[in-house]
Amino acid sequence: MVSGRLCIAGLGPGALQQVTPEVAQALQDATDVVGYLPYVARARALARQGGREQAVAWHASDNRVELERARQALALAAQGRRVVVVSSGDPGVFAMASAVFEAIESAHGSEAALWQALDVQVLPGITAMLAAAARAGAPLGHDFCCINLSDNLKPWPVIARRVQLAAEADFAMAFYNPRSQSRPEGFVRLLQLLRGCCEPGRLLVFARAVSTPDEHLRVCTLADALPEMADMRTVVLVGNSMTRTVGRWVYTPRHYGMDGACAGSVP
Amino acid sequence: MVSGRLCIAGLGPGALQQVTPEVAQALQDATDVVGYLPYVARARALARQGGREQAVAWHASDNRVELERARQALALAAQGRRVVVVSSGDPGVFAMASAVFEAIESAHGSEAALWQALDVQVLPGITAMLAAAARAGAPLGHDFCCINLSDNLKPWPVIARRVQLAAEADFAMAFYNPRSQSRPEGFVRLLQLLRGCCEPGRLLVFARAVSTPDEHLRVCTLADALPEMADMRTVVLVGNSMTRTVGRWVYTPRHYGMDGACAGSVP
Repeated sequence: MVSGRLCIAGLGPGALQQVTPEVAQALQDATDVVGYLPYVARARALARQGGREQAVAWHASDNRVELERARQALALAAQGRRVVVVSSGDPGVFAMASAVFEAIESAHGSEAALWQALDVQVLPGITAMLAAAARAGAPLGHDFCCINLSDNLKPWPVIARRVQLAAEADFAMAFYNPRSQSRPEGFVRLLQLLRGCCEPGRLLVFARAVSTPDEHLRVCTLADALPEMADMRTVVLVGNSMTRTVGRWVYTPRHYGMDGACAGSVP
Repeated sequence: MVSGRLCIAGLGPGALQQVTPEVAQALQDATDVVGYLPYVARARALARQGGREQAVAWHASDNRVELERARQALALAAQGRRVVVVSSGDPGVFAMASAVFEAIESAHGSEAALWQALDVQVLPGITAMLAAAARAGAPLGHDFCCINLSDNLKPWPVIARRVQLAAEADFAMAFYNPRSQSRPEGFVRLLQLLRGCCEPGRLLVFARAVSTPDEHLRVCTLADALPEMADMRTVVLVGNSMTRTVGRWVYTPRHYGMDGACAGSVP
């Protein structure tokens, strides 16, 4: 009988004040914490506050080894450990949850049965785009989509086509990983693409490291947007055709296409 | 000089364990809490635990009066009160944040200047689709979109076109308010629409009242989906063409369109 447990937990965008009590409790109960180095460091800071740093085995790994990390966590849980896999933001949004299920799916033999029988829980967190939107006002206050620009997960034509269809649907858009190390040109191409399908006055929000001491927010129009405004810690939000400013806030109205108020491309 | 403060706070999907410490603190500091009846009741339960129920003025209102509620909250804050507007989930996702900025934008005269000068903060919360996705596994683990089926916010043709474009882009999709009172037929039409643009084996998750005692989760294929599976408290998630099950979990792989592994309509 397997007594181990695997939680895949979202730490939110950075601030401890945005970690849910559920996630804090899972960390409190953990024997092992597994994750990408900076996220393990955040979980460790939390444990230090609770005086539990020494009681936990910390397994920090580098970026780009998500599947190995997931396998390590599953193997530990199968040994009866109480394991927490930490993700930034929400574990289900371009983070570790899918990697863990991929690892379970690709397991073989007795391992497959063992891993499928584990008590696995996904604990949601505040995802970066919603933390960023909250800081800016309510730019995602109407229908929106969420696209990962990260390298090596999908070919560029898939991204390009999705952006064009999203613009045609007049979705607000959130872009994760706009400038990843191995695809720095991706965001340059994205801006070109957006200029081909959105008006120059379309509002963009560049939200860097929201809720951390490095937080920086910048609002500008598509015409004024520069590739350098985004880096690896930035989430980029693009309004829909109705998105506007009121004072220092950016927001998207709740209504759309009523009484001829629609300026978008949806008929 | 205005000393009032307005927080627009997300209570998450229902469980107290998913309310962030930041939101709990804002409620702790509030003189007034404004919101839709059931959400005010949840905030009140939180205050009762903290022994602060008597210290707060509770302003509960019915559904469909978002703009009046926003104006009431702004007026209270302009009088110097510390006001929290409570939303379920995240305030920026089909909730009160946009309504507050709409109210600020539509204010006139001295009120306009007063309201724009207020200290307004949006505090993010766990939005329903991410709580639902976490319970199901990781169905939103790749690019996705989020559509509100609620009545009286946009005409049906806008929704229909967005769904078709989203299917063409092979986004996973999250639908809020699938069966609202004044548009019960919306979800029937949505299922018809999806059957026209997705394969019969496409996976759907019906997630009702996640994290509450009434929680109910059902996974089925598009072929087997029935309108009755959704009600006003349900969020419906639709996978992309790659979404699959592993054991009792539903997940969407992180990779897409590599090595001919793509079954979707994006070339």
